[in-house]
Amino acid sequence: MDYEAIVVGGGHAGIEASLALARMGHRTLLVTQSLDTIGRMSCNPAIGGLAKGNLVREVDALGGQMGLLIDATTIQFRILNRRRGPAVQAPRAQADKFSYSRLAKETLEVQKGLSLFMDTVTDLIVSEDGRRVEGVVTERGHRIGARTVVVTTGTFMDGRIFIGDYDASSGRLGEPAAMGLGSSLRRLGFDVGRLKTGTPARVRRSSLDFSRLEVQPGDGAMQPFSFMTGKIHRPQMDCYITWTTDVTHQIIRDNIGRSPLYGGKISGKGPRYCPSIEDKVVRFPERERHQIFVEPEGEGTEEMYLNGLSSSLPEDVQTAFIHTLPGLERAEVMRPGYAVEYDYLNPIQLLPSLETKKLEGLFLAGQTNGTSGYEEAAAQGLMAGINAALVLSGEKPLILSRSDAYIGVLIDDLVTKGTQEPYRMFTSRAEYRLNLRHDDADQRLTPLSHAHGLATGERMERLKEKARAIAEVKAILTASRKGSQSATEILKRPEVSIADILADVPSLSTYDEAVLQQVELDVKYEGYILRQEREVERFARLENILIPDGFNYDKVDGISNESREKFKQILPRSLGQAGRISGVRSSDIAILMVHISQEK
Amino acid sequence: MDYEAIVVGGGHAGIEASLALARMGHRTLLVTQSLDTIGRMSCNPAIGGLAKGNLVREVDALGGQMGLLIDATTIQFRILNRRRGPAVQAPRAQADKFSYSRLAKETLEVQKGLSLFMDTVTDLIVSEDGRRVEGVVTERGHRIGARTVVVTTGTFMDGRIFIGDYDASSGRLGEPAAMGLGSSLRRLGFDVGRLKTGTPARVRRSSLDFSRLEVQPGDGAMQPFSFMTGKIHRPQMDCYITWTTDVTHQIIRDNIGRSPLYGGKISGKGPRYCPSIEDKVVRFPERERHQIFVEPEGEGTEEMYLNGLSSSLPEDVQTAFIHTLPGLERAEVMRPGYAVEYDYLNPIQLLPSLETKKLEGLFLAGQTNGTSGYEEAAAQGLMAGINAALVLSGEKPLILSRSDAYIGVLIDDLVTKGTQEPYRMFTSRAEYRLNLRHDDADQRLTPLSHAHGLATGERMERLKEKARAIAEVKAILTASRKGSQSATEILKRPEVSIADILADVPSLSTYDEAVLQQVELDVKYEGYILRQEREVERFARLENILIPDGFNYDKVDGISNESREKFKQILPRSLGQAGRISGVRSSDIAILMVHISQEK
Ligand SMILES: Cc1cc2nc3c(=O)[nH]c(=O)nc-3n(C[C@H](O)[C@H](O)[C@H](O)COP(=O)(O)OP(=O)(O)OC[C@H]3O[C@@H](n4cnc5c(N)ncnc54)[C@H](O)[C@@H]3O)c2cc1C
Ligand SMILES: Cc1cc2nc3c(=O)[nH]c(=O)nc-3n(C[C@H](O)[C@H](O)[C@H](O)COP(=O)(O)OP(=O)(O)OC[C@H]3O[C@@H](n4cnc5c(N)ncnc54)[C@H](O)[C@@H]3O)c2cc1C
Repeated sequence: MDYEAIVVGGGHAGIEASLALARMGHRTLLVTQSLDTIGRMSCNPAIGGLAKGNLVREVDALGGQMGLLIDATTIQFRILNRRRGPAVQAPRAQADKFSYSRLAKETLEVQKGLSLFMDTVTDLIVSEDGRRVEGVVTERGHRIGARTVVVTTGTFMDGRIFIGDYDASSGRLGEPAAMGLGSSLRRLGFDVGRLKTGTPARVRRSSLDFSRLEVQPGDGAMQPFSFMTGKIHRPQMDCYITWTTDVTHQIIRDNIGRSPLYGGKISGKGPRYCPSIEDKVVRFPERERHQIFVEPEGEGTEEMYLNGLSSSLPEDVQTAFIHTLPGLERAEVMRPGYAVEYDYLNPIQLLPSLETKKLEGLFLAGQTNGTSGYEEAAAQGLMAGINAALVLSGEKPLILSRSDAYIGVLIDDLVTKGTQEPYRMFTSRAEYRLNLRHDDADQRLTPLSHAHGLATGERMERLKEKARAIAEVKAILTASRKGSQSATEILKRPEVSIADILADVPSLSTYDEAVLQQVELDVKYEGYILRQEREVERFARLENILIPDGFNYDKVDGISNESREKFKQILPRSLGQAGRISGVRSSDIAILMVHISQEK
Repeated sequence: MDYEAIVVGGGHAGIEASLALARMGHRTLLVTQSLDTIGRMSCNPAIGGLAKGNLVREVDALGGQMGLLIDATTIQFRILNRRRGPAVQAPRAQADKFSYSRLAKETLEVQKGLSLFMDTVTDLIVSEDGRRVEGVVTERGHRIGARTVVVTTGTFMDGRIFIGDYDASSGRLGEPAAMGLGSSLRRLGFDVGRLKTGTPARVRRSSLDFSRLEVQPGDGAMQPFSFMTGKIHRPQMDCYITWTTDVTHQIIRDNIGRSPLYGGKISGKGPRYCPSIEDKVVRFPERERHQIFVEPEGEGTEEMYLNGLSSSLPEDVQTAFIHTLPGLERAEVMRPGYAVEYDYLNPIQLLPSLETKKLEGLFLAGQTNGTSGYEEAAAQGLMAGINAALVLSGEKPLILSRSDAYIGVLIDDLVTKGTQEPYRMFTSRAEYRLNLRHDDADQRLTPLSHAHGLATGERMERLKEKARAIAEVKAILTASRKGSQSATEILKRPEVSIADILADVPSLSTYDEAVLQQVELDVKYEGYILRQEREVERFARLENILIPDGFNYDKVDGISNESREKFKQILPRSLGQAGRISGVRSSDIAILMVHISQEK
């Protein structure tokens, strides 16, 4: 074997997978089409947002890289939903795209145990019995052996871009598609489908009329994404807001027949939750206007991203409708919007470890699994990397449950239900949101990762310090009294914030803001959190009843044929997961439970 | 017309061409395949060197950008041949490739009057009478009008890369070739040929054994390339030296049959002066070893460039021979070396302004014209941009002569002699080297450019200040006496340097080092310089006899048929140029001179 692990693709999933493998001590090779595009952001110049921000903090808590990368390259930071409940608050940062990608490359390059190689993987090497992956074959003819392979091909596998009636083989505008691997996976018997996604035009900063745009500044202070980052000293840049108008919508309606989507050229399904502007106009005819964010792509670049204006209409139409937005009347388009269609593998073919059921040692992560978004990709990449490393060292996989992390929700959804359209994370997908806050992701996850040798000792120390500080603050609050009430009780009142308490209890001011904020949330939402913890306990009961490997569903009488087929296809890990398979009835689960307890 | 000028390609030629056009007041569009690869350095991470360094200073003196770009992104600076005569001294700087390219993009983006657009030009729009260019057609179907077009396609026009028996359509490894334009130019009747060039592998820094490499540090102080840059504060990085061994050569000889060059797969001719390592081994069998420079590709990257090891042998052979060099025994290859073959236009089809003879308004510059090297490309790009701007404003072209600048030598060689192999600048190509020193390029060229509205007033001010300082220093030297001799006379002695004089004449120490150095050279080489100036005068006599546009060679009796055909093909601008056409006899020039003086 040349390497212990090979990671295919240096996007957001591939970065995390290869770093995790190397950091867990396994000789890893990252093969990627171009060393110059590592960690490139294909679409919006931002990391985080609702639910996605939580994913980033979880990736970080587990010893992943995305949080550190964005902290070092951010140009604006905001906590979304600051005025609303903690379960829906989330951090979001604008990125300097250029620096983000450069730093990602540097980080991989200096990682011990990780090698980088520029080439395109076109095929897999499979053991004679057809059951195990044994390496990869590249376009330039290399055959490279490895016991595990993590495939993270993003939008590049047989990628094809579309703009009006123009289309071409490409993974991102200007970058060649990765050909070969898709057919090879089909030949190996995988179910490979097509999905599509889209991106808006980039316009030139100096061609905009800022007097007609609304400014959207960042929060005063930049909060780090990573639990390891201290203070952030980075330039802060503004974003801007504008709106579509009825003329915009009219132009789009008049030209909808020239869309490759509506004209039927694209067969792949697009992301329902990240629709193109033409989709929005068609699907919500009653909406008079749509909000558009105008976001810088970095420091020192004139390129501005038109968040919300994703389109694959012909370029003349794009330019025409862009010019109808206030402030964009004379916008110069530097790159057009476009749609991209690409091969993906329905993730129902995966175990919860992200290993394929068909081929031992083969893991899939990122956009390839039918998701969309950098954060979703990073989360999967990290877990695939960790689990490939655990396979290599002969250990049991690390599976996060739906009550542990958004990552658990993400992967459970993917492998249990599969997906036929680009899957994106939302807070609403998580049942136990109050337990999955972004501020305590380290407490939930760092110990787990540390036990597996990924999160460093330094990270554990930080966590312990933070836990100590939280305990101290809580003790101080309980001890501080104002009249008959303790500060804790006072803080519970809806109209009181920790800032108010600070005024009365100056000794608190020595503690980090992150610590104070977390205590505030813990205290204010104590009742809800306790209630949710009881729900989690109930949930965990079924979750902890594991279905043995190789369990024979044919021997189980009394379950419906439909359920039996689904069980055999999905191979649920636990009764809990079995119960979430669509169409499975609770009576089937009851019968299954009896059988499993008898087998023990 | 949509624009006054369109520049095709954002490489080193395209950058200068588009900035010059916009700065001279013409609405310009740069169309390039990818906004993310603007100013990318395809091969060695360095700017300057012998003769090339002079080109950069000339580009700068004329108001071009290359000097400023490298000053802001350098990681090592050296004056080559410091111990030898001033005519062969030249500055050379290692570049941080990533930052260089980022800054190039930013510079273009903020330029007023210049727009950037990401697309590939596939065809030209030509006037009905077939005599004038009127715009371009792009891959995505745009038809964009302009009165002038500057084509700078580098190695991308129908580019094809080769490594052993692997080959693929590509302009640089990982980047798509630009298809279409080559056929279109052929169809329009241009003589389009094939050339090739090559690049070495990049290896990983941490896999090298530095104890076995010789360190090559930079000069203590960093001298700016640009006459506009003040002090340079940049990190200084070391380069390293190693050597090939007989085992290296043996491996190459054993595998030479697997080379695409020797196997006959590549038809295009390669650069004789920048040969691949296999060429060196085959052509100089007596050489026991070849020197190899190991150069960082930037700060914070592990990629190291193996200067001198360019190869298109199969990758297993490349790795095998790399491992035979001391210090590289365990070198990890991150990108392989490769050769690239591409379309070029024999520059004999160009006027000295770089406008094509066949199509009015169409200019060609850079690698497309059969040259190789960033500096050669930038020099041509700048002149093509200036001359396209002069066409737009109805002015006469700016033609630098062989005694004005290396740029004059470069372009005169190209358009007078054409080239069948990649042309590279050498000091030996220039007849009047002492007059083409790098330190006084501003004095030679800035006033010319300022008169045409390109070099800024600020630049002229600097020049005047420098001239004033030089005059003052010379006056001080003449006034300072030691015994019977003036300091000027003492400085003339071979063993005395300006530093020695400085010790005796402390008032000099307030002057810039650049000023002192220049005075030193002026004084020391006064005799040679005067002699050369007389030669230049003689040279200029023929050079200043211009041949009228549309001159009818058929009416000139007594010249050989061969010469007549060559004159009609090349359309020399002056008797001087006519005399440099290969195969033309001096008797032909004498006859021509008589005819031209009679016509007046
Ligand atoms: C046009 C476009 C629009 C998008 N719009 C949105 C959006 O609106 N919202 C959203 O959330 N997300 C969007 N995305 C998706 C977002 O970019 C991805 O979710 C994210 O980048 C996925 O990360 P990844 O690591 O899975 O893949 P990518 O970031 O695509 O990275 C894949 C990497 O693998 C390399 N690679 C691929 N195949 C091979 C191979 N066979 N051999 C070697 N290397 C290979 C590629 O060169 C690339 O570097 C969009 C993407 C594109 C291209
Ligand atoms: C593999 C390799 C090895 C080399 N080795 C050496 C060497 O050893 N020594 C040396 O001195 N030089 C070498 N060079 C050459 C050096 O890179 C070039 O001389 C220099 O980059 C030329 O600059 P340019 O502006 O002419 O073209 P390039 O730098 O090639 O830039 C051309 C630009 O135009 C764009 N483009 C091309 N066609 C189109 C189109 N139709 N439409 C829109 N955009 C287009 C391309 O995307 C690119 O951005 C090498 C180049 C390569 C690729």
